[in-house]
Amino acid sequence: MAKQIRGIKTQDRIVRRAAQLASVEGLEGLSVGRLAEALGLSKGGLFAHFGSKDALQLAVIEEARRVFSEAVLVPAESTPEGLPRLFALQAQWIAYLHAESFKGGCFFAAASAEFDGRPGPVRTRIAALAGQWRERLAGEARRSKELGHLNPDADPARLAFLLHAITLEANWAHQLLGDPDCFVHAREASEACLRAEATPEGLRATKARRVVPARPEGVLS
Amino acid sequence: MAKQIRGIKTQDRIVRRAAQLASVEGLEGLSVGRLAEALGLSKGGLFAHFGSKDALQLAVIEEARRVFSEAVLVPAESTPEGLPRLFALQAQWIAYLHAESFKGGCFFAAASAEFDGRPGPVRTRIAALAGQWRERLAGEARRSKELGHLNPDADPARLAFLLHAITLEANWAHQLLGDPDCFVHAREASEACLRAEATPEGLRATKARRVVPARPEGVLS
Repeated sequence: MAKQIRGIKTQDRIVRRAAQLASVEGLEGLSVGRLAEALGLSKGGLFAHFGSKDALQLAVIEEARRVFSEAVLVPAESTPEGLPRLFALQAQWIAYLHAESFKGGCFFAAASAEFDGRPGPVRTRIAALAGQWRERLAGEARRSKELGHLNPDADPARLAFLLHAITLEANWAHQLLGDPDCFVHAREASEACLRAEATPEGLRATKARRVVPARPEGVLS
Repeated sequence: MAKQIRGIKTQDRIVRRAAQLASVEGLEGLSVGRLAEALGLSKGGLFAHFGSKDALQLAVIEEARRVFSEAVLVPAESTPEGLPRLFALQAQWIAYLHAESFKGGCFFAAASAEFDGRPGPVRTRIAALAGQWRERLAGEARRSKELGHLNPDADPARLAFLLHAITLEANWAHQLLGDPDCFVHAREASEACLRAEATPEGLRATKARRVVPARPEGVLS
């Protein structure tokens, strides 16, 4: 039993360190030798926990999903559904990128670019999770319409496209250019896109409740 | 002389094929062995033209820049400056991604994600070109303001951020999710963003001249 618990803990340690390394070096570029060295394990000892590089990569993806979910989804779920939650999801996501939970920036953005041309189980899982996340934004936009928080002619899929675009851009500009304004631009642009489609009722519902520490410049901060 | 010309032609062939391969497999993942095989050359023969992998990667980046410039910049330069040219740059860029000039999608998006965590001359060049391109969009937005085509309170840097975001998103959604609506969403969202900041004069100037084959749904098509 004690051995089993120790085994699970080692597996956790491996996956956490691997997720950090993969965010910088890529999921395919993940060197098992370097990972083992960083953890004080032999390559054989490390592989005993996973069996294959695919299995390690899939475990790393689940770890990245867990981190994302705790930082973005869980806090936003405590806000009322509709426009307040849509604001909260976007604000939490931007704050999460700004906080650099992963040294190499958005784990899924990096993994998407790396695997979009490599068919297989890893690509399938990345695409499924990334698609689910954008669909989560679109779903909250649809709910916002049902609740009368967005104009009747708002297009939920296009809104999700735009919100997702803004955050990917901030990640890109931060990681590649070290652009000091990218998170401010992301917050302002997100707020402008949501306000452009919001009803007065939607804005009232949003102002009544804030999830993230308030800043003077707007709702989405 | 004839030998020199043949040498230049071979170099061109290598770089063109390498750019296609790199857009799918990554610039770092570019296998010199596979590239040589695809071109019917020996690895030594291939390296005789470049000397190092860095040099080959840098040559591939210049090739990608040439393709992008011919497809996007050159056609847009023939439209009047200001808002018409901003519309044209964005429309040409989206059309270029839709046409899949590179099998793996936007060369610079893939290379950015791959190299943002790898310091060195390759990363430096990618960041310089990607930054210049976004600055080109911001510069045209500033010129649009000077010409009275955009509202006085429009923020050129934020507008460039948003236009760039929309196109990166379309590339991501096309490459990873095979999203059939991504280019339509990109055109609609770009048009909405530009219209939201445009003056009546700016819109008049844009309608007077179209660069890309007109479609019924809007200016940006």
